[in-house]
Amino acid sequence: MRILVSTVPFAERESQPLDLLTRAGAEVVINPLGRKFTEKELTERISDFDILIAGTEPITRHVISNGAKLKLIVRVGIGLDNVDLVAAKSHGIAVSYTPDAPSPAVAELTIGLMIDLLRNTHISNLRMHDGTWYRYFGQRLAKASIGVIGLGRIGSRVIKHLGGFDCCQILVNDINPDVSTPQHPTCDVVRVEKDQIYRNADIISLHIPLSQTTKNLITQREIEKMKPSTLLINTSRGGIVNERDLYNALRADQIGGAAIDVFEREPYIGPLIELDNCILTAHMGSMSVDCRTQMEVEASKEVTRFIEKELLESRVPEFEYKNQSGMV
Amino acid sequence: MRILVSTVPFAERESQPLDLLTRAGAEVVINPLGRKFTEKELTERISDFDILIAGTEPITRHVISNGAKLKLIVRVGIGLDNVDLVAAKSHGIAVSYTPDAPSPAVAELTIGLMIDLLRNTHISNLRMHDGTWYRYFGQRLAKASIGVIGLGRIGSRVIKHLGGFDCCQILVNDINPDVSTPQHPTCDVVRVEKDQIYRNADIISLHIPLSQTTKNLITQREIEKMKPSTLLINTSRGGIVNERDLYNALRADQIGGAAIDVFEREPYIGPLIELDNCILTAHMGSMSVDCRTQMEVEASKEVTRFIEKELLESRVPEFEYKNQSGMV
Repeated sequence: MRILVSTVPFAERESQPLDLLTRAGAEVVINPLGRKFTEKELTERISDFDILIAGTEPITRHVISNGAKLKLIVRVGIGLDNVDLVAAKSHGIAVSYTPDAPSPAVAELTIGLMIDLLRNTHISNLRMHDGTWYRYFGQRLAKASIGVIGLGRIGSRVIKHLGGFDCCQILVNDINPDVSTPQHPTCDVVRVEKDQIYRNADIISLHIPLSQTTKNLITQREIEKMKPSTLLINTSRGGIVNERDLYNALRADQIGGAAIDVFEREPYIGPLIELDNCILTAHMGSMSVDCRTQMEVEASKEVTRFIEKELLESRVPEFEYKNQSGMV
Repeated sequence: MRILVSTVPFAERESQPLDLLTRAGAEVVINPLGRKFTEKELTERISDFDILIAGTEPITRHVISNGAKLKLIVRVGIGLDNVDLVAAKSHGIAVSYTPDAPSPAVAELTIGLMIDLLRNTHISNLRMHDGTWYRYFGQRLAKASIGVIGLGRIGSRVIKHLGGFDCCQILVNDINPDVSTPQHPTCDVVRVEKDQIYRNADIISLHIPLSQTTKNLITQREIEKMKPSTLLINTSRGGIVNERDLYNALRADQIGGAAIDVFEREPYIGPLIELDNCILTAHMGSMSVDCRTQMEVEASKEVTRFIEKELLESRVPEFEYKNQSGMV
C-alpha cells in the first residue's frame, strides 16, 4: 500500500511511527515541503495513494474526489474541521483520528500562556532585549477570574492544572449540557453562560472544536462585552476567534492582550504580527515530543491495523459526521 | 517622622500603603527617579530621614553611617543581601521585612517561565513577529526532570504548583538539612545533592537567598555538568548565577536556554539582551498587584507600629544577622 504523510513534522524526533509503517510493508511518502499542503498541492498528489496520514491541510470534497485509490484517512490530532467527513463517507473512505494524545501538551501550553499574559512576561522580554528596563505589574492566576469555554479533554485538563494554583474563581461553559463540570477541592468551578464569561473573566481560554456553530464565536460583538483588561487565549482552532476583529480590538487596547496559537490560515502571516500585546506561536499546542510521538504512533498503528485487515480502533465517531452535515 | 521610600514602585496601583503612612502623621518622600537609587544617591538623601522603606538598592555601611537620624529600615520584600545588617545593628537601627508576601507571585511566574522555556514560546513569539512560521518541538512539565534548589517559602510553592501537573520527577535540594522535603501525592519529590540536579535535571530553578555561600553558585564549572538541553531559571537574586559564564554558555549552546528575572546590577543592561534563548524580565517576580500591595501594606503597617511605639511584628530574625556576619 502507498501512504502519503501530509502532516508536518512526522517522525522527526522519534523514528518509531515511520518504522511501524515500513515494517507493515507500506511505501511511505512524506510531505517534502516542510509546511502544510494547499488544497491544490494535495489534490495533485492524492491520486496515487491508498492511505493519507493527515495534518490540518484542507481535505475537501475536491481532494477526496481525486483520491481514486484512497481508502483511509488518519488525522494526526483531534480536530476534524479540515476533513470533509461526509464526502469521505460517500466515497467509502474510513476516517480515524488520535483524539486523546494531544491534550496534555495543549493544556500545559495554555497554562504557560495564561501566566505570560497575566504577568506581561512576553512584553518585558521584548523590552529587555531592546535594552529597556520596566517592572510591569501583573495579576496572579490564583486571584484572576478564569473563563474556560469547552470542558472536553483539554479544557478539563486546564482546570486540573489550575487546581494546583488554588485559583479563586473558574467560570466554565460547554455547549453540551451532558458534559459534567469538573470540580476541584481548592477551586471554585462555576458553570455559567458564555456571556457571563465574556463580561466577567479576567482571562478567557477556548477549548472547543471548529464547527459551523463555533466559527466566529468571538467577534467584535463578544469582545465589546469584555473588560479593557481581559486576556484572550486560543489554542484550539483558527477561525473561532475572528482575526480581523481581534486585531482591531488589540490595536485599540479594547482588551488587555491575547495569545494565539492557531490561525484561520496557517502558516500565518497577517497583521497580528505587528502587535506586541499578542503572543503568537506556530500551532505548537500539541508539539511536545511525547505527545507528538504518541499522536504519530497511534496514527501509524491504526494504519498498520488497516493494512493487516484488523479492526480499526480509533474511527471518528458518528456524531462528528452528523455535526458536520449540520444534522445536530 | 520623615520617611524615605526608596523602593520603586510604591503605592502605584493601590493608595492604601501611602494612606497608612500619612494617617500616622508621617511626612513621606517617595523616590522620584522611578528606578533604584545608587549608593551615592541614597547616601546624599538619607541624612534627613528617620525611617527608610527600602527596595533592593545598596544600603551599605556608608549609607547607614550617613543616616544620622535613621531608626528603622523596612525592606519591602524578602532578600536582605542589599542591607548591611551588622552596620544597622551597630548604629542601633531596627530592620524589618515582609518575607511572606512576595512568594505567591514569584512561584507563579516561575511556573510560567518553566513552560515558556520547555515549549519555546518566547522563541516562537519572536519568530512569528518577524514573519517566520516554525513549529518548535518542546517538552512537557509532566515528563521533565525538574530541579528545585531552595525549599523555602517560594521553592515549596513551586513544588505545590507542579503537583497540579502530575510531574514525574522533582529533584530538590536545600542547604539546610532541617528544612523538610515537600511531598505531593502525584509527584515523586526526591532530595538529592546539588550536583545530581546539575547533571540530571531538564530544568533547574533557584529559590535561595543571595549570601556569601550562594554568590556565584552557578558558574562555568556547574554549567559544564549540565546537559546541552538543560534550562535554567533564576527568579531569586542576581549574582547567584554568574552572568558572564551564563552568557558564554548560552551563546555556545552549552545549555538549552535560560530565564533570568534578577541581575547582578539592576536595571540590567548587559550582553544577555543579545540572546534569544534567554528570557529576560525586569525583576518582576513579586510584581503581581496583590502581592506587591500586600508587601507595601505590611511594610507601612510596620512603620506605623514604630511611629506609634507599638511592638514591631516583622523584625529580621537573628539568624539573618549571623548569616551575614559569616557566623553561620
